Amino acid sequence: MAILIDGRAVAKEINENTAERVTRLANEGIIPGLAVILVGEDPASKIYTRMKDKKAKKLGIHSVLSVYPDDVRQEELLHDIRQFNEDKMINGILIQEPLPDHLDGNELLNAIDPHKDVDGFHPYNVGLLYSNANENYPVSCTPKGIMSLLKHYQVKLEGARAVVVGRSILVGKPMAALLENANATVTIANRHTRNLSEITRQADVLVVAAGVKHLITGEMVKKGATVIDVGIHRLEDKTLTGDVDFESVAPIAKMITPVPGGVGPMTIATLMEQTVDLTEWSHNG
Amino acid sequence: MAILIDGRAVAKEINENTAERVTRLANEGIIPGLAVILVGEDPASKIYTRMKDKKAKKLGIHSVLSVYPDDVRQEELLHDIRQFNEDKMINGILIQEPLPDHLDGNELLNAIDPHKDVDGFHPYNVGLLYSNANENYPVSCTPKGIMSLLKHYQVKLEGARAVVVGRSILVGKPMAALLENANATVTIANRHTRNLSEITRQADVLVVAAGVKHLITGEMVKKGATVIDVGIHRLEDKTLTGDVDFESVAPIAKMITPVPGGVGPMTIATLMEQTVDLTEWSHNG
Repeated sequence: MAILIDGRAVAKEINENTAERVTRLANEGIIPGLAVILVGEDPASKIYTRMKDKKAKKLGIHSVLSVYPDDVRQEELLHDIRQFNEDKMINGILIQEPLPDHLDGNELLNAIDPHKDVDGFHPYNVGLLYSNANENYPVSCTPKGIMSLLKHYQVKLEGARAVVVGRSILVGKPMAALLENANATVTIANRHTRNLSEITRQADVLVVAAGVKHLITGEMVKKGATVIDVGIHRLEDKTLTGDVDFESVAPIAKMITPVPGGVGPMTIATLMEQTVDLTEWSHNG
Repeated sequence: MAILIDGRAVAKEINENTAERVTRLANEGIIPGLAVILVGEDPASKIYTRMKDKKAKKLGIHSVLSVYPDDVRQEELLHDIRQFNEDKMINGILIQEPLPDHLDGNELLNAIDPHKDVDGFHPYNVGLLYSNANENYPVSCTPKGIMSLLKHYQVKLEGARAVVVGRSILVGKPMAALLENANATVTIANRHTRNLSEITRQADVLVVAAGVKHLITGEMVKKGATVIDVGIHRLEDKTLTGDVDFESVAPIAKMITPVPGGVGPMTIATLMEQTVDLTEWSHNG
C-alpha cells in the first residue's frame, strides 16, 4: 500500500512558515497585502474568495476583498486593477474565475502588474516560467504547491519520467513546465492522446489534472510510481473523490495523494506563501 | 527510403508569398521594416545578420542593420531599442546572439516592444505561445518554420506522439509548445533523460535539436516516423551534417529533413514572413 501524501500537514507547515515571515516583515514595518477581485454571485467563487480572505487575515496579511455586481463594466475593473497596481499596500492581485461572459478576462489579467500577479497567470510570468528564467516570478499556485509536496516527500525528479494528464493553463501546463525545469523528462497527455494507459504506465511521477472522475485506474500506473491527483468530484453520497481511482491505484503506487487532503490544501497555502514572496521581492528590488 | 523534406523549396514558396504580401502592403503605402542589432565581431553573427539584411531588402522590406562595437554600453543599446520601439518605420526588432558578457541580454530583450519582437523571444510572447492564446503573436522562427514544413508535407499532428530532443529557448521549448497546440502528445527529452532511445522510438514525429552530431541513429527511430533535424555540424571534409545519422535513419523514416537543405532555409524565410505578419497585425489593430 502506497504512502499517503499528507497535503494538510505540509500546508500547515507552509502556513506556519508564512506566518513567521509575515511577523519578520512586520518588524520592518511591512505588511503584505492581497487584493481579491470577485465578480457576481457564483456560489463556489464566493466560498473560495472568502476562504482566501480569511486565511490571509489569519496569517497577518492585509486582505482586500473587492466584490462587484454581475453586470460590472470592464472599464471599472480595469480602473480598479490599475489602482491596486499603484497601491503600495497591495502586493498581490487576483481575479477569481469564472468571470461573466461580457467581461474580457485576458484584458483584465494583462492589466495586472506582473510583479503583483499572485496567481502567476500573466503571460509575462508564464513566459518566465517556460524560459526557466533565472529570476523571481510567481507561478500558478496549484502546480507550485504540488512541487512543494514532491519536495517534502523527496521525490526524485531529475531524469525521472513525468506524465501530466491534462493541459489547462491553471494546472497542467505550468505543472509540466515546473517538472521540466526540475530536469524531469515530461510528457503532457491531452484529450487527443491515443493509448493513454501506455503513456501513463511509463510515468515515475504521474500528475492527473484531467477533470474526469476515476480516469486513472490501477492497470494504468507503473509499480512504484508517485501519483498526484488534482481532480475533485463529489459523489452521490456527498463524499469527494478525484481523477484517480484510489482503490485500484494505491496498492500499486509508491506514494499517492488522497482526495480530499492531498493537493487541495496546498493551493491556498501556496497563494499565501506567494503573496509574501511578492512582498519580499518588491522590497528587495 | 524516406521522402526528403525539401526545405529550400518550401522556403522559396514562403519567400514568394512574402514578396507578394510586401507588394500588397506597398500599394497601401506601407513598407514593413526590420531592425537588426549586431554587437561585436563574431564572424558567424556577421554572416547571419548580413544574410537577413540582404534577404529583407530583396523582398522589399525596409532593413536597418545597426552595428555596435564589442564594448558598447547597455544604456546605449536600451536607448536605441526604445527608439526602434517608437519608430513607425520599424515593425520587427531582433538582437543577434551571442552578446558580449558585459551586456544583460534579458534586459535588452525585455526592452523590445512585444509587438515588434520578431524573434518571439520576449517572455510576454512566450507566455502567449504556452497559453495557446487566441490572438496574434510572434513565435521563434526555427520551430515556426518547422511547423510550416510539417504542414506543407501534411504530417498529421493531432493525436500523434511527438518527441522533441533538446529544450533550448530558441528551438526545443517553443517547438514542443507548437506541437502541443497542434494537439500532439508531446515529450521533451533533455540531457538528463534516461533511455533516450526508448522514448524516441515512440515518436511519430521526432524533432532533434540537441546540438550533438549523429545523436539519433536508425535503431532509435520508429518505422514510418517523420524526422526533423535541426542540428548543423561541419565535418572534417567541410560537408555539413546534423544531429541525425541520416544514413541509418533515412531507410526507416517515412519523411526526413536533409542537412543542409531541410530546416536551415526555413528560419530566415520565417523571419521575413513574421516581419510582414507583425506589420499587418500592427495596421489591423
